Amino acid sequence: AHVPFFAERYSEGEMIKRSQMFYELLNKRRSVRFLSDEPVPREVIDNVIRTAGTSPSGAHTEPWTFVVVQDPYLKHKIREIVEEEEEINYKKRMGDRWVNDLKRLRTNWIKEYLDTAPYLILIFKQVYGWLPNGKKKTHYYNEISVSIACGILLAALQNAGLYTVTSTPLNCGPQLRVLLQRPANEKLLLLLPVGYPKKEATVPALTRKPLKDIMVVM
Amino acid sequence: AHVPFFAERYSEGEMIKRSQMFYELLNKRRSVRFLSDEPVPREVIDNVIRTAGTSPSGAHTEPWTFVVVQDPYLKHKIREIVEEEEEINYKKRMGDRWVNDLKRLRTNWIKEYLDTAPYLILIFKQVYGWLPNGKKKTHYYNEISVSIACGILLAALQNAGLYTVTSTPLNCGPQLRVLLQRPANEKLLLLLPVGYPKKEATVPALTRKPLKDIMVVM
Ligand SMILES: Cc1cc2nc3c(=O)[nH]c(=O)nc-3n(C[C@H](O)[C@H](O)[C@H](O)COP(=O)(O)O)c2cc1C
Ligand SMILES: Cc1cc2nc3c(=O)[nH]c(=O)nc-3n(C[C@H](O)[C@H](O)[C@H](O)COP(=O)(O)O)c2cc1C
Repeated sequence: AHVPFFAERYSEGEMIKRSQMFYELLNKRRSVRFLSDEPVPREVIDNVIRTAGTSPSGAHTEPWTFVVVQDPYLKHKIREIVEEEEEINYKKRMGDRWVNDLKRLRTNWIKEYLDTAPYLILIFKQVYGWLPNGKKKTHYYNEISVSIACGILLAALQNAGLYTVTSTPLNCGPQLRVLLQRPANEKLLLLLPVGYPKKEATVPALTRKPLKDIMVVM
Repeated sequence: AHVPFFAERYSEGEMIKRSQMFYELLNKRRSVRFLSDEPVPREVIDNVIRTAGTSPSGAHTEPWTFVVVQDPYLKHKIREIVEEEEEINYKKRMGDRWVNDLKRLRTNWIKEYLDTAPYLILIFKQVYGWLPNGKKKTHYYNEISVSIACGILLAALQNAGLYTVTSTPLNCGPQLRVLLQRPANEKLLLLLPVGYPKKEATVPALTRKPLKDIMVVM
């Protein structure tokens, strides 16, 4: 069934101001690879994941699972798996050019934040689901839908004053899926450590493309 | 070079409140397929695209192009291309099960909003780029990065009081790329018509999964 849709309406002046302020807020987001071990209220984590769950998804499949890891032992297990694979990635799998592209970010395979961040959020995409009759249900565009949900999650984290680094632990998916006891229809998409920046946190001195380099008006 | 990172810090009470309010704002987002032709200030469109451009991206490749179409003739051309392909999609390519899955959304191949929305934003992913020496530069995880940027764009639209429907015009990519004169390294990812809902707009009566069905805490 369809239902009438009512939307809040702002004045043009308000729209311009709101859009400007939201830009300024999100433009302060940076990927932070030095996270402190200060605790973060669980309620905030619940709220940002609820927010991610408002994302659109192909045919409303909602094909996402957010695994929040707070147990220190499990976090350390995750660190061991990721560091072991990442060392091989950097030394063998990624190739000179990729490693070179990452040089100015000064990333490497040591990921202390996997121990220190109060929460690790591992985002799984459900590549298929189940129909009421037990048959497999295709999840069209599941990777795009879950990535969009992660974009909304990142906005929600920034809005709440929390920091993360969007990471894709190459080749770690299967081991992490087993460690976290996720079913076979789920595949790891991203790993987000969440917390506050350490006092001495630094970030690469990057700039972003100006509007004219990312927008074309016709 | 790395530089010190300073982050705004809210009290725990503020964090909880901000995260709750952001959830309530985004939970009002719906995909709206009935958009009015009322004009929308261009400055707001600029700001939401600027905001999308703050997204993280694999190795900071920023592999996105946002094509904003406001010309009525071009919008109509886009409509013709999309409707022609979508009719074939619905009748032949998608298969009974997919069409069935979409039934409760009551979507079909008629897309009036492509004419009426004041802006169509077509988002292209740059599957590769160019190095200063003229060689091809791989864009790792370009689809994930651009989808995350679109999630941030959707949050920015909702924050500004603008509505859209996230759409993936199946099989239209190549024709739309040529129509909009985008280079061969760009592939269409999503098409977002942007505007205000029509007074008589309706939406499917969907519900969203509760937190306990999308989050696992360990
Ligand atoms: C990747 C993706 C592709 C989508 N493709 C279409 C589409 O081609 N046509 C359409 O009408 N809606 C499309 N949608 C919108 C979904 O149907 C919609 O998000 C879902 O039904 C949930 O409704 P809501 O967005 O109102 O919460 C798409 C959404 C996503 C995330
Ligand atoms: C899909 C994707 C994958 C990424 N993978 C990693 C990663 O594995 N490790 C890492 O340290 N950063 C990773 N990043 C973060 C990017 O390096 C970062 O977003 C980029 O350098 C821009 O910096 P900023 O986020 O501070 O704006 C990834 C980002 C995206 C979007």
